[in-house]
Amino acid sequence: MNPASLGEIVAALGGELAGDANRRVERIAPLASADGASIGFLANPRYRAQLAETRAACVIVTPALRDLASPGVATIATADPYLYFARLTQWWAARTRPVPAPGVHPSAVLAPGCRVHPGASVGALVCVGEDAEVGDGAVIGAQCHVGRGAVIGAHTRLAPRVVIGDFCRLGARCVVQSGAVIGGDGFGFAPDGGRWVKIEQLGAVRIGDDVEIGANTCIDRGALDDTVIEDGVKLDNLIQIAHNVHVGAHTAMAGCVGVAGSARIGAHCTIGGAAMIAGHLEIADHVHVSAGSFVSRSILRPGQYTGVFPLDDNASWEKNAATLRQLYRLRERVRALEKNPPNPG
Amino acid sequence: MNPASLGEIVAALGGELAGDANRRVERIAPLASADGASIGFLANPRYRAQLAETRAACVIVTPALRDLASPGVATIATADPYLYFARLTQWWAARTRPVPAPGVHPSAVLAPGCRVHPGASVGALVCVGEDAEVGDGAVIGAQCHVGRGAVIGAHTRLAPRVVIGDFCRLGARCVVQSGAVIGGDGFGFAPDGGRWVKIEQLGAVRIGDDVEIGANTCIDRGALDDTVIEDGVKLDNLIQIAHNVHVGAHTAMAGCVGVAGSARIGAHCTIGGAAMIAGHLEIADHVHVSAGSFVSRSILRPGQYTGVFPLDDNASWEKNAATLRQLYRLRERVRALEKNPPNPG
Amino acid sequence: MNPASLGEIVAALGGELAGDANRRVERIAPLASADGASIGFLANPRYRAQLAETRAACVIVTPALRDLASPGVATIATADPYLYFARLTQWWAARTRPVPAPGVHPSAVLAPGCRVHPGASVGALVCVGEDAEVGDGAVIGAQCHVGRGAVIGAHTRLAPRVVIGDFCRLGARCVVQSGAVIGGDGFGFAPDGGRWVKIEQLGAVRIGDDVEIGANTCIDRGALDDTVIEDGVKLDNLIQIAHNVHVGAHTAMAGCVGVAGSARIGAHCTIGGAAMIAGHLEIADHVHVSAGSFVSRSILRPGQYTGVFPLDDNASWEKNAATLRQLYRLRERVRALEKNPPNPG
Repeated sequence: MNPASLGEIVAALGGELAGDANRRVERIAPLASADGASIGFLANPRYRAQLAETRAACVIVTPALRDLASPGVATIATADPYLYFARLTQWWAARTRPVPAPGVHPSAVLAPGCRVHPGASVGALVCVGEDAEVGDGAVIGAQCHVGRGAVIGAHTRLAPRVVIGDFCRLGARCVVQSGAVIGGDGFGFAPDGGRWVKIEQLGAVRIGDDVEIGANTCIDRGALDDTVIEDGVKLDNLIQIAHNVHVGAHTAMAGCVGVAGSARIGAHCTIGGAAMIAGHLEIADHVHVSAGSFVSRSILRPGQYTGVFPLDDNASWEKNAATLRQLYRLRERVRALEKNPPNPG
Repeated sequence: MNPASLGEIVAALGGELAGDANRRVERIAPLASADGASIGFLANPRYRAQLAETRAACVIVTPALRDLASPGVATIATADPYLYFARLTQWWAARTRPVPAPGVHPSAVLAPGCRVHPGASVGALVCVGEDAEVGDGAVIGAQCHVGRGAVIGAHTRLAPRVVIGDFCRLGARCVVQSGAVIGGDGFGFAPDGGRWVKIEQLGAVRIGDDVEIGANTCIDRGALDDTVIEDGVKLDNLIQIAHNVHVGAHTAMAGCVGVAGSARIGAHCTIGGAAMIAGHLEIADHVHVSAGSFVSRSILRPGQYTGVFPLDDNASWEKNAATLRQLYRLRERVRALEKNPPNPG
Repeated sequence: MNPASLGEIVAALGGELAGDANRRVERIAPLASADGASIGFLANPRYRAQLAETRAACVIVTPALRDLASPGVATIATADPYLYFARLTQWWAARTRPVPAPGVHPSAVLAPGCRVHPGASVGALVCVGEDAEVGDGAVIGAQCHVGRGAVIGAHTRLAPRVVIGDFCRLGARCVVQSGAVIGGDGFGFAPDGGRWVKIEQLGAVRIGDDVEIGANTCIDRGALDDTVIEDGVKLDNLIQIAHNVHVGAHTAMAGCVGVAGSARIGAHCTIGGAAMIAGHLEIADHVHVSAGSFVSRSILRPGQYTGVFPLDDNASWEKNAATLRQLYRLRERVRALEKNPPNPG
């Protein structure tokens, strides 16, 4: 509990306050569950009715909706309330979460030749490999592994128990959640008379600035060249990025997505949860793939793409799915009817 | 090898023994591969033929089937043989697996202010954060991470290398498998002119009693409120539970399931493997989702729901899938035929 | 940078060199991006045009294509260039990557009774449990966990932060990527009046020789018998292998595959990414399952099998998916037309 006054908030983040600048809030809350110690936001005008009903101390709104707030509720007017909310969470976190002190925990194991910036924080039971580099303000969470020759950019934060493989590079201000594995071997084997011969993966992973990588997500090292994740990419949990994939800047992928080897995904794309992208194909900038879809061919034009079997009650599904197995023949039967209708009667 | 007599088993677990109470068994085995040192069970009457053929020393059966056992095979009669079998595995594990001694391994790193109950066991190379709490009889496996202010309930067991994030809470008697990440950041970003601005995730994860969480499963912390997993929920491996999800009591999910943000799933549901549940929807109690299905809308009535493309040999699939792309037009053609049939001949 | 001469390469790996044996290369590269310090390969005759355009110092080709290389480009002719390339990557890695020195890092925690071969290497912050066994030449990466009674075969390599559960066994020359969990509990519960009673998983995992296991992949221990992965199996990242599964020799699975309990998969199969295999079924040898497919029944004949909803632009998908829900009725309508066509006009 570390209350902030509305005046402090607008001093830090801007916006036009209507209400008592000395009023204090103790938390950020959804309007529906907000109480008199909460600040909330209204991003979608469809939910404007909540403005009259909320018990929040203050609501972040667009100027157009400000007057709908019930009396006694302060407002902060701003062009983009959702973006203001995002910045407010950052400001809130910065003032309430302890900042790890710079320095290396005595239980960490640092290999010879690694360079940890004096402004970086290296947690308990971390391993840092030979010739690895950890930048200024970087935070390496407890029990992480930073491989030989790896580079962690300035102000990048690794949550506890992340693995950064040998020679992989992260830019500045990245965030990596626990359990992520950057730089495992790509999956490459040559067949040899019914057996598989391993192709050693000689590339690495190169990650830009401001990238976020979710818990237990895997990004494999390239076979020969590097796997590349450009600036501003956001990856949710349990995502698989195979070797030699290239993900363009500011693309976001939801949980459980899989991207097969050498796929090249454009910038500013969104890939819905559990979508799967086959290998060796290209996806243009500004493509949006719906959750659960399987992308088996290149997509060269921006737009929304989908391929998901619609859910049904099980009995209906069984009948339709069985018929689906004969769909081609059904079309042939329709074609026959169109050409040669049966004799009436 | 630590044999148990049939008499000991019924003394511990009940049931009506027909046979020699002094006969000893060395293992629990499936009827098909059981030998004279094994105890097995028959849960499904369809497999009753196995009763006459098994070489097991003893079979757990319903009273109705007891007489089908071949002579020389002892039986334990009980109303629910599968449940008896489950309890037998627990009894067997308790007598054959070493119990970790209470205390903290000298290599563990405990932050100031954490409270570890003297009856708890904290393994090698564990980190416990400030103000965290570990309850009586809890077992924290080697190399686990228990974050700042986290709470581990009494008799909860973490397998090696689990991450419990800051301020996340687990109830009593939970089991968490290796690699699970409880309390990673939820995936929330506000768009800002083609870039993404992180929404700091200020909530935590709240887990009830008797919950099981599988290997490498992820449960994200809430954006503002907590993500909630109620009592008795069972989650298999590699499951993704996004921020603000609510999973009702005694619901079970098989491996590779994904649940998107703010979904609210009822109690006593079963979610089949690799099913995906979209965000911001509601699933009623006692809903059963088939494996591989994508749930894109709320399900308000109990029942079994499915949406899976039926498997076929590749050549047939190709023809049917191509036709599927024109299904809507096919329906139009049928409608046209119904209205204006072509001229015969 | 550790250049190798073409003469050294053919001395080590065979093949017929045409060109200067003293020419040195510094890297292996794709033909398209190769420069004069690179060696590349041409495996697919479809891309033979690259042979005339590449700037590589040397190309590995079949004898039939050797003469298409432009003058000044050396060639190594061999029957299977892709296999030669695989062996070249191994040879390259062996000469450029440091070999971990045998011995146990002082920060590792070894339980009494474990046996680590003097030729094995045990990294920093590793835990090895009681009675575990680590074979000659094995490499246990930093922060790994080797459970009680587990066995790691000779020359098997665990990347950092792998978990091998109690009593699980890996054969010789296996490779396990970071985050993999071998031997988590299988997902087994008996229903008891709306609650779930845990079935303790008393089996283990048994893995053959030359198996590769990807990052964050999970293989659960068996309920009573062992889960079995035979020799030469290759598993990519984020795969779920449930309890009691049996995977035949030299089968390969791409990322994000799930295999449910007690499935029995043959030898020499390939399972495409994100394919899901239901429990208690059988898949014959030499079966190939396409990526994204759901296998709900046994497959007893070799061949390629598929079941994936085809991707479409979202508007077209919506129309076709809505119609799909009425496919069965559509077939009935076609049947009616075939039997009783409407009266013309």
